Amino acid sequence: MTVEIEPFRAISVSRLAHELKAQGRSIIHMEFGQPSTGAPDAAIAEAHRILDSEPGGYWESPALRARIAKLYDGRYGVTVDPERIVMTAGASPALVLALMMRFQPGDRVAIARPGYVAYRNTLKALHMEPVEIDCGPEVRFQLTAEALRALDPAPAGVIIASPANPTGTIIPEAELKAIAEVCRERNISVISDEIYHGLSYTGPTPSMLQFEPNALIVNSFSKYWSMAGWRLGWLLLPEAEVPQARARVGNMFLTPATLSQHAGLIAMDCEVELEANIDVYRANRALMLDALPAMGLRSIAPPDGAFYIYADIGHLTDDSIGFCEALLRETGVATAPGVDFDPVNGHRFIRFSFAVSTAQVEDALARIKPFFAARTAAAEERLSA
Amino acid sequence: MTVEIEPFRAISVSRLAHELKAQGRSIIHMEFGQPSTGAPDAAIAEAHRILDSEPGGYWESPALRARIAKLYDGRYGVTVDPERIVMTAGASPALVLALMMRFQPGDRVAIARPGYVAYRNTLKALHMEPVEIDCGPEVRFQLTAEALRALDPAPAGVIIASPANPTGTIIPEAELKAIAEVCRERNISVISDEIYHGLSYTGPTPSMLQFEPNALIVNSFSKYWSMAGWRLGWLLLPEAEVPQARARVGNMFLTPATLSQHAGLIAMDCEVELEANIDVYRANRALMLDALPAMGLRSIAPPDGAFYIYADIGHLTDDSIGFCEALLRETGVATAPGVDFDPVNGHRFIRFSFAVSTAQVEDALARIKPFFAARTAAAEERLSA
Repeated sequence: MTVEIEPFRAISVSRLAHELKAQGRSIIHMEFGQPSTGAPDAAIAEAHRILDSEPGGYWESPALRARIAKLYDGRYGVTVDPERIVMTAGASPALVLALMMRFQPGDRVAIARPGYVAYRNTLKALHMEPVEIDCGPEVRFQLTAEALRALDPAPAGVIIASPANPTGTIIPEAELKAIAEVCRERNISVISDEIYHGLSYTGPTPSMLQFEPNALIVNSFSKYWSMAGWRLGWLLLPEAEVPQARARVGNMFLTPATLSQHAGLIAMDCEVELEANIDVYRANRALMLDALPAMGLRSIAPPDGAFYIYADIGHLTDDSIGFCEALLRETGVATAPGVDFDPVNGHRFIRFSFAVSTAQVEDALARIKPFFAARTAAAEERLSA
Repeated sequence: MTVEIEPFRAISVSRLAHELKAQGRSIIHMEFGQPSTGAPDAAIAEAHRILDSEPGGYWESPALRARIAKLYDGRYGVTVDPERIVMTAGASPALVLALMMRFQPGDRVAIARPGYVAYRNTLKALHMEPVEIDCGPEVRFQLTAEALRALDPAPAGVIIASPANPTGTIIPEAELKAIAEVCRERNISVISDEIYHGLSYTGPTPSMLQFEPNALIVNSFSKYWSMAGWRLGWLLLPEAEVPQARARVGNMFLTPATLSQHAGLIAMDCEVELEANIDVYRANRALMLDALPAMGLRSIAPPDGAFYIYADIGHLTDDSIGFCEALLRETGVATAPGVDFDPVNGHRFIRFSFAVSTAQVEDALARIKPFFAARTAAAEERLSA
């Protein structure tokens, strides 16, 4: 084995959370990016029905592909041939497939820092070179056309993530268009991770597909459709690349779970229930954006979408892993350390996921308030000493 | 994109089969390697129960890992720490993970020819070099220690498949041990695909784990447990490699479907029902081994396991794809062309999967008998002309 891959640090926080829970502690899980809700009721009913009626087997649902194609028309006004959609067991293998379709070992691929840890690690595991672009609060932690234009030499590709993990910030339409133009000019291949689409609070989320028809689009049922445990996602490709993508999927992954595809199809028409989830997230977001600055967490880019808040705790610590562990031990609130998302500056950030109930958010805020007050007081004492 | 990957040809046969079915034709599906039975009843009942009781999420079942570890003790008398088992969405991503753990781009990896098409194609997709060892009927289409010893230079690794696809032949214990020894001597890393274990007709199936504790073992719920559509498999690794394997899985794949893991755990204790499936396969195998030679298909290595028969049709054609299509059009029996498994000699082989009902096997044999009689007569006429 040649490449050392870093583990998710949030997993060790989560393991500690489960240990504490086993000891009888009350734990609020804000460390992972998954809805605490289950799949929509009608999707679960469909799974029951299929369980009793079909033996299942290797299968890709044509109806699901057609329904997903319709989504692109409805959400973005872009017509998509269902044949261009390849179903996968979640967005993760879809990203692996996308990277393998477009790049070869040694290729340089640009990503935002902070960003989803798997971009960096999957690139490395595939012997590609992540080129991290430092994206600070001044650009709301997001890639810009300017930053991509300044990269010298031009990378072979770029992974766009909007809404982003860990910050929830969305790239505005004009900027996304400008990024598409720079990529065309500089021959940079675009992969767009749109897994948090559908979860936005400040306005619509444009798709890279509107501006770059050749982009590879990654998406999943794990977030908006609240079906993380069902492992269902897809990759949308230009028509010309579909045969090779299918050849790869047929050898490397085969099809996603039959039951998940049946349930996912039904979930796509459960808008009322899914929008109710978003109402909860919206309330949670408002509560947190109100409470956290009052606790001294002032450097936050208010998330436009997703269900994360990425907060600067640099005035309190330079060890986000230790901080998350202390926070968890003292308050029972589990969070993700920033080092998962940013190996350079992440030691002074933590990420909260607010995809829990509003009661849990209220409880969490009440618990962490005295913790942050004590830490802030201690930090001020150190400064004045 | 740099590497061109070949599609499964059986998929186009299957597509034609579905077209003919849509036109009202009666089709018998013997082209794919999947049981026509569903998951065991108790596993389905458990899925119903979990659907109603848990929202699900990213999760790897500790109980399932422990139960799988117990399987190695029960089947092979080898003690395995459950921590060494990494769950995946089927054997396919487990193989991808295994190859990425042990090899880097450019590495040469030996495989038997004929063999499962995904070995060759996945190696190529990962920029590794498949080294195909021609394994004819004289070695029952299987790798031998002698062939591995003769390879010059020694490859970085080898993929062992026993029972094999497309032939069902099993590597006997003494030979497996000799292969392990050659690999140790020559520093060849061993990956053993044991997906057909549990399905054997002529005696026990030894595991490479008995002879090479450092081998990576791939397995799945798709065959013996009859859960192909549930997408559940695993990779067993030496303890020292587990952290890096988990880091890769956490970035590239995440966990398999929650429901599948719950159901899989229960399926592992459904021996009576699963052994009844094997009784059906055993009867099907006997029927086919009796009937096919009488139709002129004499060059068959009787399958020790799995549910395949790989038959030489070289006296009738040198175009297995065309032959499979003609067979399908004229009789409604879908089979897989040998070129999927052997790019050199596969033009004169076809593979039957007998994981269907015994009534279907009887029907299929009755349908193909006049077809083979006519083809044989025509071939004899050509020869004598």
